[in-house]
Amino acid sequence: MPIVTLLDYTSVLIFALTGALVASRAQLDVVGFCFLACLTGLGGGTLRDLLLNRAPIWVEDPTYLAVGCSAAIAVFFGAHLLESRYTAILWLDALALPVAAAAGAGIATSLGLPWPIVLVMGVVTGCGGGLMRDVVANDVPVVLKQGEPYVTCALAGAGGFAIAAWAGLPAPLPTLICAGLTFALRAGSLAFAWRIPIYRPRPPRHK
Amino acid sequence: MPIVTLLDYTSVLIFALTGALVASRAQLDVVGFCFLACLTGLGGGTLRDLLLNRAPIWVEDPTYLAVGCSAAIAVFFGAHLLESRYTAILWLDALALPVAAAAGAGIATSLGLPWPIVLVMGVVTGCGGGLMRDVVANDVPVVLKQGEPYVTCALAGAGGFAIAAWAGLPAPLPTLICAGLTFALRAGSLAFAWRIPIYRPRPPRHK
Amino acid sequence: MPIVTLLDYTSVLIFALTGALVASRAQLDVVGFCFLACLTGLGGGTLRDLLLNRAPIWVEDPTYLAVGCSAAIAVFFGAHLLESRYTAILWLDALALPVAAAAGAGIATSLGLPWPIVLVMGVVTGCGGGLMRDVVANDVPVVLKQGEPYVTCALAGAGGFAIAAWAGLPAPLPTLICAGLTFALRAGSLAFAWRIPIYRPRPPRHK
Repeated sequence: MPIVTLLDYTSVLIFALTGALVASRAQLDVVGFCFLACLTGLGGGTLRDLLLNRAPIWVEDPTYLAVGCSAAIAVFFGAHLLESRYTAILWLDALALPVAAAAGAGIATSLGLPWPIVLVMGVVTGCGGGLMRDVVANDVPVVLKQGEPYVTCALAGAGGFAIAAWAGLPAPLPTLICAGLTFALRAGSLAFAWRIPIYRPRPPRHK
Repeated sequence: MPIVTLLDYTSVLIFALTGALVASRAQLDVVGFCFLACLTGLGGGTLRDLLLNRAPIWVEDPTYLAVGCSAAIAVFFGAHLLESRYTAILWLDALALPVAAAAGAGIATSLGLPWPIVLVMGVVTGCGGGLMRDVVANDVPVVLKQGEPYVTCALAGAGGFAIAAWAGLPAPLPTLICAGLTFALRAGSLAFAWRIPIYRPRPPRHK
Repeated sequence: MPIVTLLDYTSVLIFALTGALVASRAQLDVVGFCFLACLTGLGGGTLRDLLLNRAPIWVEDPTYLAVGCSAAIAVFFGAHLLESRYTAILWLDALALPVAAAAGAGIATSLGLPWPIVLVMGVVTGCGGGLMRDVVANDVPVVLKQGEPYVTCALAGAGGFAIAAWAGLPAPLPTLICAGLTFALRAGSLAFAWRIPIYRPRPPRHK
């Protein structure tokens, strides 16, 4: 199995778990769990594939849907075992983000696309699923929380991928660098409350 | 005219009526009526076609747009004749859902796609238009109402389609089974308040 | 450079400025500025390209992303020079709408599509970016403000384009007519509060 496929499955599984946990907080039924798990798990990759004008990967390989629904069913029957579902969502999301960003950057690179598109596809694949989950569940998208790095982590990781690939590092290294960098930044921002400077309004200048 | 085309036109017309009725409740102008009617009528099928990597059917056949705008104009001038627009929206939606789900499942089957994709395309075609209508009009999406079966009805209908097609039933039968099953479940849930069990939080286990 | 490409760049630049100004009002960080600027600048054209089943133009030509990010950075450091960011957003949006609508109608015409699709593509390209900006930033979409013409302006402009093209006017004229008509209507509605009649509920008829 090529490494990009393995990354895709892993990110679908972890993102689907976060989607199902959000469904449990919203008290949906089991079909709602599967819907939100598949949307979160497959949303980013589907957006990437639509933008690259290819059929989404799960249309040809329904295993992805099985992975998403399995995660949903596991959470439906097991979510009460967790101490804090909110913490579990945050940290599972922080695990899935680097894997999905690496998969997105890897696919764009394997298609021979220029580096700005590699960055965009890393960000879209990494952040798309979580954004859709939050919009549909009517939460404030984690993507837009003031000063909390999220898109920035995926962007930095995809940048690491592009630089490593440009430097000619052999096959699994760019992927590992991307995932490691994204996870380090995101986990650091969760654990140590790292923030990036936000826009501060200043009064207009009157000469 | 193949049966799938006929189903597509019918579901566009009925969904467009619900979109225009929502526009009348939001007091939009006539262009807003056409916008919301076409979005609701064509949204699910467009999403399906994008996921299957084909051009949406209305790009090649603008008759669909004419159907949507005609429904919008009819509602703009006739909505005040209705006793309750809210009830009309609910029941027209319950009529359009099975037709659209059958069209979606039928197209996925005619493309030779595996059964999980037939299920997903039935659900996406059936539920997509109504979801977009509710999101744009800022209502709680009917898709996510706790315990009220909606996605489940489309899923069950598409499942009936897949089983009937797999059993080798001749051409119009799987479509009729799908539409009938979806409508029976949805109409039953509206008329008799059928509900499906939702996730209930339990305290975490402490050993 | 063909005129449609020039229009595309111009509309991306101006829409990206409005997106970045919205980001400054929401006090996002610089990555959030770039995200919202690119979403607003490229959203309408991307939606058009997806519906026409082609890869979005910025995937092949990353210059568009550079234009969007430059606008974002300029606003991040210069927004405090403006007296009223709200007025700037309204009027920049009124400038971008006609340019984008003309680009959308022009591309649909150059692909030989029938006139209803030319109208839809003018509207989608013109209104898509602003709609996504407002939905993501959680504002009331300008598209849906009661009685304020916005979609209608783009629709009228695209109609002017279709008529001029059908009458056989030479190359840059339909584009100029479309942009001029759209801008005149939108600027008029902003400056003189032009409104179009909205749906007014009437009591149901009892015979």
